[in-house]
Amino acid sequence: MKMQTALLPSLLLLLLTAAEVPGGAATSASCGYNGCPAAVPRRVNLHIVPHTHDDVGWLRTVDQYYYYSVQFILDNVIRELSLDSKRKFTYVEMAFFYRWWREQSNSTRDQVRQLVANGQLHFAQGGWCMNDEATTHYADIVDQQTLGMRFLNDTFGDCARPRVGWQIDPFGHSKEFAALLAQMGLDAFYFARIHFLDEVQRVITRRMQFVWHASRDFGSPSADIFAGDFVSGYCYPPGTNYEGGDQPVQDDPQLHDFNVAEAVRKFIVQVDLLRLAHRTSHLLLTMGCDFAYENARKNFKIIDKLIAAVNANTSQHNLTAYYSSPDCYTKAVNDEGLAYAVKTGDFFPYASGPNSYWTGFYSSRPALKRLVRWASGHLQAVKQLAAVGPAVLGDASERLDRLRQAQGVAQHHDAVAGTEKQAVAFDYALRLSDGIASSDPLWQARLAQLQFGNLSQRDGLRACQLLNASYCPVSELATGRFFVTFYNPASRLSWHSARLPVTGRYYRVLDEAGAPVTSQTIPVNNGTLRVPERNLSIAVNELAFFVASIPPLGYAVYSVEPCNSTDPGASVFTPILPTTNAGRSASEISVGLAFYIGMRGNSSGEQFRPSGAYVFRPTTDRPQTLSARIQAQVIGPVVNETHFNYNDWAYLVTRQYPGASSNYLEAESTVGPLPLDDGVGREVVAVYSADGLSASSGEFLVDSNGRQLMRARRDPSRPEAAQFRPANAIVSVADAARQLTVLTDRAAAASSRPAEGQLSVMLHRVTLDDDGFGVGEALRERGSDGRGLVVKTSHWYFLAEPAAAADRYRLLASQRHRSPLVTFSLLQPRSAWCQWSALTAPLPDSVQILTLEPWRQSPDRLLLRLENIFQANESSAHSGPVTVDLGATFSAFAILDAVELNLSANQRLADQTRLKWRSMQTEAVDQQPRRGPLTKSLEMTLRPMEIRTFEIRVAYKGGTL
Amino acid sequence: MKMQTALLPSLLLLLLTAAEVPGGAATSASCGYNGCPAAVPRRVNLHIVPHTHDDVGWLRTVDQYYYYSVQFILDNVIRELSLDSKRKFTYVEMAFFYRWWREQSNSTRDQVRQLVANGQLHFAQGGWCMNDEATTHYADIVDQQTLGMRFLNDTFGDCARPRVGWQIDPFGHSKEFAALLAQMGLDAFYFARIHFLDEVQRVITRRMQFVWHASRDFGSPSADIFAGDFVSGYCYPPGTNYEGGDQPVQDDPQLHDFNVAEAVRKFIVQVDLLRLAHRTSHLLLTMGCDFAYENARKNFKIIDKLIAAVNANTSQHNLTAYYSSPDCYTKAVNDEGLAYAVKTGDFFPYASGPNSYWTGFYSSRPALKRLVRWASGHLQAVKQLAAVGPAVLGDASERLDRLRQAQGVAQHHDAVAGTEKQAVAFDYALRLSDGIASSDPLWQARLAQLQFGNLSQRDGLRACQLLNASYCPVSELATGRFFVTFYNPASRLSWHSARLPVTGRYYRVLDEAGAPVTSQTIPVNNGTLRVPERNLSIAVNELAFFVASIPPLGYAVYSVEPCNSTDPGASVFTPILPTTNAGRSASEISVGLAFYIGMRGNSSGEQFRPSGAYVFRPTTDRPQTLSARIQAQVIGPVVNETHFNYNDWAYLVTRQYPGASSNYLEAESTVGPLPLDDGVGREVVAVYSADGLSASSGEFLVDSNGRQLMRARRDPSRPEAAQFRPANAIVSVADAARQLTVLTDRAAAASSRPAEGQLSVMLHRVTLDDDGFGVGEALRERGSDGRGLVVKTSHWYFLAEPAAAADRYRLLASQRHRSPLVTFSLLQPRSAWCQWSALTAPLPDSVQILTLEPWRQSPDRLLLRLENIFQANESSAHSGPVTVDLGATFSAFAILDAVELNLSANQRLADQTRLKWRSMQTEAVDQQPRRGPLTKSLEMTLRPMEIRTFEIRVAYKGGTL
Repeated sequence: MKMQTALLPSLLLLLLTAAEVPGGAATSASCGYNGCPAAVPRRVNLHIVPHTHDDVGWLRTVDQYYYYSVQFILDNVIRELSLDSKRKFTYVEMAFFYRWWREQSNSTRDQVRQLVANGQLHFAQGGWCMNDEATTHYADIVDQQTLGMRFLNDTFGDCARPRVGWQIDPFGHSKEFAALLAQMGLDAFYFARIHFLDEVQRVITRRMQFVWHASRDFGSPSADIFAGDFVSGYCYPPGTNYEGGDQPVQDDPQLHDFNVAEAVRKFIVQVDLLRLAHRTSHLLLTMGCDFAYENARKNFKIIDKLIAAVNANTSQHNLTAYYSSPDCYTKAVNDEGLAYAVKTGDFFPYASGPNSYWTGFYSSRPALKRLVRWASGHLQAVKQLAAVGPAVLGDASERLDRLRQAQGVAQHHDAVAGTEKQAVAFDYALRLSDGIASSDPLWQARLAQLQFGNLSQRDGLRACQLLNASYCPVSELATGRFFVTFYNPASRLSWHSARLPVTGRYYRVLDEAGAPVTSQTIPVNNGTLRVPERNLSIAVNELAFFVASIPPLGYAVYSVEPCNSTDPGASVFTPILPTTNAGRSASEISVGLAFYIGMRGNSSGEQFRPSGAYVFRPTTDRPQTLSARIQAQVIGPVVNETHFNYNDWAYLVTRQYPGASSNYLEAESTVGPLPLDDGVGREVVAVYSADGLSASSGEFLVDSNGRQLMRARRDPSRPEAAQFRPANAIVSVADAARQLTVLTDRAAAASSRPAEGQLSVMLHRVTLDDDGFGVGEALRERGSDGRGLVVKTSHWYFLAEPAAAADRYRLLASQRHRSPLVTFSLLQPRSAWCQWSALTAPLPDSVQILTLEPWRQSPDRLLLRLENIFQANESSAHSGPVTVDLGATFSAFAILDAVELNLSANQRLADQTRLKWRSMQTEAVDQQPRRGPLTKSLEMTLRPMEIRTFEIRVAYKGGTL
Repeated sequence: MKMQTALLPSLLLLLLTAAEVPGGAATSASCGYNGCPAAVPRRVNLHIVPHTHDDVGWLRTVDQYYYYSVQFILDNVIRELSLDSKRKFTYVEMAFFYRWWREQSNSTRDQVRQLVANGQLHFAQGGWCMNDEATTHYADIVDQQTLGMRFLNDTFGDCARPRVGWQIDPFGHSKEFAALLAQMGLDAFYFARIHFLDEVQRVITRRMQFVWHASRDFGSPSADIFAGDFVSGYCYPPGTNYEGGDQPVQDDPQLHDFNVAEAVRKFIVQVDLLRLAHRTSHLLLTMGCDFAYENARKNFKIIDKLIAAVNANTSQHNLTAYYSSPDCYTKAVNDEGLAYAVKTGDFFPYASGPNSYWTGFYSSRPALKRLVRWASGHLQAVKQLAAVGPAVLGDASERLDRLRQAQGVAQHHDAVAGTEKQAVAFDYALRLSDGIASSDPLWQARLAQLQFGNLSQRDGLRACQLLNASYCPVSELATGRFFVTFYNPASRLSWHSARLPVTGRYYRVLDEAGAPVTSQTIPVNNGTLRVPERNLSIAVNELAFFVASIPPLGYAVYSVEPCNSTDPGASVFTPILPTTNAGRSASEISVGLAFYIGMRGNSSGEQFRPSGAYVFRPTTDRPQTLSARIQAQVIGPVVNETHFNYNDWAYLVTRQYPGASSNYLEAESTVGPLPLDDGVGREVVAVYSADGLSASSGEFLVDSNGRQLMRARRDPSRPEAAQFRPANAIVSVADAARQLTVLTDRAAAASSRPAEGQLSVMLHRVTLDDDGFGVGEALRERGSDGRGLVVKTSHWYFLAEPAAAADRYRLLASQRHRSPLVTFSLLQPRSAWCQWSALTAPLPDSVQILTLEPWRQSPDRLLLRLENIFQANESSAHSGPVTVDLGATFSAFAILDAVELNLSANQRLADQTRLKWRSMQTEAVDQQPRRGPLTKSLEMTLRPMEIRTFEIRVAYKGGTL
């Protein structure tokens, strides 16, 4: 499997033609920053930014919104832009634009291309959606941004390349997201929701705009981005929502109610408020709102009149107004050259009022959050399997796109955030399910090819999506031997604690080499498996074994065969036995369940704010602890379990894997159905304590989008809800000697609560009221049996010396995200084909192949991203630059050439020139500037937290495939 | 002043060129009925009619509606039509279209002309507004239709000529209006509001469509018109108001919620309901609503898809759908050739439910109703004065148009109907006031020219618009002699009972020949004059005298001079003296005031319906009678008065003019301010009784739009509100021997109630609740002093033998409408110029010049309408054909030629070809078909109720002017 790379370096000097490389197309003279209106000197320049914010699902599904509203917004806006070249419009959500574009005639497409080329139609951010920043994983953010920006690039070329982030609606803002935007080459980042007290302070100190230094691992300017909060939201200034019924400008003196002067006067009042909060002489005025511009005619016609009226008296108020875009605004501000304060933290938690901490949504709809996170890892695996050989299906690109798009939509700030209506949540799940089913043939065909050399066997390979509910037809119904393939999407050797539903007690498990593997059967436990789908299963036991070593970007095939209890290698049957060992597991760490009771209320005012889909507002500062009624144990060679049965809606199992190489404990909680009708809204947390660990500072660590860690600290001046942060992967608390870490399987609210040194992670929420921020439904989820939803959560946790903690949590977090793709078959592969890897060898622990996927519908082009998953100064072993020789990495193909791109893969890195911003503070300067093209070899270095992106051209190894 | 007509007849044979005559332009091959889609044989043809109904004022003013909504409707509709030549749209209200057209560029205008020419943009009815049918005077209907249709004709030529009446929103339908539409050349008349029980009956018997024989004076087909009621209103069928949020057609199978089949199924259900109610194989489906199509894109795009989906399965449901118009629908139904039932009555009262008789609005806002009626006569006078000589002002046309347009807008079914919001009612009044002020210089200049031979004197001529509140600066402030001009817009010698506010007791009044006139002064009476504007006046007395004989279309100038009580001809001062003569006036007729109490309620259901702006729902079947507390009398040579002071909100004066030639009594009631805050909504009526008159049939007569009389009969099976009818001029009740008649000064609800033989006329209404039909306000009008509105009403009434009644009521009604224009001046005309007439002699009593006005902005063209104001068989003296020699009628000008037009003056009568309709009944055939061009002389004959319309070219008599 050694890769032949000797001839490659010389090929790398070849430049791809401009037409073939994203971002290589020549920029039109009037698009990008070139198409911007000239600043008017010695005046306040008012940048009128017509825009619409179109949720890709919320009260309606994404397709309903498209049909009800967005198609008309785009139809009408395009026509209005065509009527007057001074008009501009900013569009954001590519999930919608893509739907619309598909339906357009060639002549409309030409018209739109022209509007893009002449700078009238701008795209801000250009992601598939406007993703949530609290509950999203960075891999998904990168993917959804790439999906949207790729569409823009393919469709319009460099003219349409977004220059700014535009997160006007999401509920708080993460540092990692800002860092990712910077690495995507964006120059600025605008939003509209920050903590109300922070906003007041910023207005007073005129710090609405600042330089966000968004990575502690990079110096300036690599992860610096100019950022601005809109002082009064992102909608129309008061009195100018003409589409929504505000009084139009009535400018015919022959008709009654002529109001031009009055309209200008009221408008100037609004502008003056902006002026007070800003230091710039350029002001950005958002003229749009959610699903605005369905009647684009009304908007533009009246705004035209308003602009004309304002400019007719420009000397009076020292103001010149014109149509602009966030891009043009950014360029104008940059040209002005002021210096700005520096921001290094994030904007969590977001609060819109003293009782409205938007920390509830960090855990709203935990089942959807888990599905989205599981799909994230699955998508990476499927993309890899599609990329490691030539396309196996003619429509591979479309099949992959369906999953990419479903996952892209799911990142929306009312999707994975859990703040959509129930019917819309179902639609997101259906969409993911469709995307997964659509893409299944890709990995099925690839595995069939690799294991049998025969595509036609692909139908014999099956995944079991309900394995977490212990349901798998293949393992349950097989009467003889069956085969389990564990595909490892990580770039290291990986392991897996398998647990398969079976009908017997005794099985023999063989590894990829045919060697016997220790296994154990455990009775199916209704306490842990009370989800309704469970009814499909006939399994009585679960077969547990440890898969010790799966090759990177590769698989191992295990076989499982029923046998007699006395057969050699037969599994050990381990019943669940009652124990009197009360309350605590044997480890140094204890875990228990507790719950907050959510405030009841209504939408009649801040004081009556209830807990709801967005807001967490508990009635007390501490959760109510649950006492376990029954305790049981399982002791076995593979896994030891301790069972805590709290009541009819809370069950907890802690697990140890004594014989395996894992270095964590698992807590699997099954929570639900929570009572929906007793008038009490319960919000259930798992509480972790390590005996004697005490962090008196109240400080804890939590990841930002699963990547950088943020320090958070308990703030006694703020309510309990304010103590929670969004955790996507890691939450950790330490004293000088020990560090307690919990690794989550999905996004969740987490805090070092209720006591110092403890960790709480929210598991499930029922709220009985709508919290008045628009969704109009309480969170009273029901399962398919009509009862309250059951949520099963797995946490991994461990205690370590602080200096050693990062080595474990970084690798475990990576493992949680990229868990193996487990598939079943009754067919036996040739023995040589029971193990396979696309790599020549595992990569260093700190290096991960973030992305490997087919690219640009080309048979020999792939998109490749490598990342360093460690931060600087967190691990003595791993916190440092690491070098990889790309040419020697892959066994599945040879790399013919490679072009380094920006993170979103829509521009060659060599072409990237970001605007420079002056800051008021002296910053550490990034000593190692971002790199240009690889020139001499395929060796490349990754600094801590660095992600590098390449378009590679490959030659597949014919022999293997 | 004799007219030289000898040379004229020979000129009459000259034809005007096609380009100069309305309707003479060649019809395009693809407009009018030519542009209609071909019927699909053996299928149900579904005519999809996109339309919008735009109230020219209701909740907002007409200009607000234009700015808020209508400009965008027209902008967007025009663009959508241009995108697809299959699309059609029907527009109605010219007040809006005119506003919009003024603002359009030449290229847009060309585009619109093209859309009209190719049959995509249709105009239905084409009036300035969609006028009310209950409370409007026929002169105003003719004017407002002419104004709109003239604009259409001038702008688009014959292509845009409306073919159908389109009264989809007004609250009941009058026979006279249908007759007028027929005389305007229209082929059909569509509406949507008829009594709910009538509608049910028509659905069951499939008589939703019928031939309306709309005049008892003409045989078929002169006043026949095909008419249809829309069974379920005029808005979108349920489920298809996409603009309003109904589910769109989702036709992309790749997106979720694909619903084409379901959308078609639901749509067909709606069509099937239509099918059941109609006998035709052509069905008209209104796809629009109030202010619909602001987002024309959304409407058309989805309806396109719906039509395509329906037609894709046409064999399944035997239905073919296509865009159509009311015109095209009419033509298709006519081509089908079915025979229809005949309707001869009207559709009053309208009821939408058992407690919702829309008879309240017949009297809602009586002050506005009076203003509109007064402006109607005033407009006729001003137009005449503008026409009787060459234009005196360069902008005469614009000045006249402002008044025409204000009066046109006021005819709207939420304007004069009194069902608009208070702020909008103020706007209508302001608009009329502006129109009157704008047109004042026209009559001022004409009178200055005629009286002084000097235009510059025109500022010295003043009208006193608050004469009815007894306020007139000229008569009050004049310290010496002043002159009063009485201009008579009627075509006969007229008279006037003048009453001028003065500060002294003794005056000498001289007529146009300098002969003394008997006069009388009466103290100003606060009981009759409690309107707030009264505060401006310093008058202490009113000077009353009778102007006996004002020449037709001419004037008489009287002089008034203060004098001593002993001077010859000095007026007689007649104090108001208490009398013990209780309760009744000396006449055979008694009149008193009474009031109904309106039901309180809300909009939560039919049973809770309150009395409101639309609905009259009294709590009892009889009004509560008021008792007069004080009675007083005035006895004098000019007028005898009896005063009844009922309470602090009701005062009644009855008057006789003993020495004059009048043959009526007057009842002047002053009602208000009605209490607004005691929880009782009062609806006040005047009740007339003639001793011994008893009409046991319960039958009475009431005019239709001031013209034809309708027989109405009390229906004991229906509530009190159902007994009322809209009276615009005449209400009358008779037994074999005597006929009691009341002539109103405005539109009002009237009935033969509370007892048989009595007449009740509603005077004023306060309702404390909104009746739930959209206006959202109770009728709690306040005057400028903030107190409840005071309404002063004048009724004329008389008792006569039935055979002699019509001779009096027809002439008196004409006199009420065309009361003299009274103007004041301090300047003395030359004595020869104190009297003038545009006519050579008064016309016969039965003939009236309905219209004489400048026409088509041409210096020598006038529009002339003559009418016979009598019906057949109502007067032995006047009910018959009458012949007038036009050539010998006018002294102010010679008629050079005359072309007879249809009633709305947008087509030559010779070119008119109306569709013929088959009826199920044998009808009297009109023996004398409508006439072609005058060929031999200017003699013309008018049959009873006939109106004939001419465009005349004139040569003004230079000598006189």
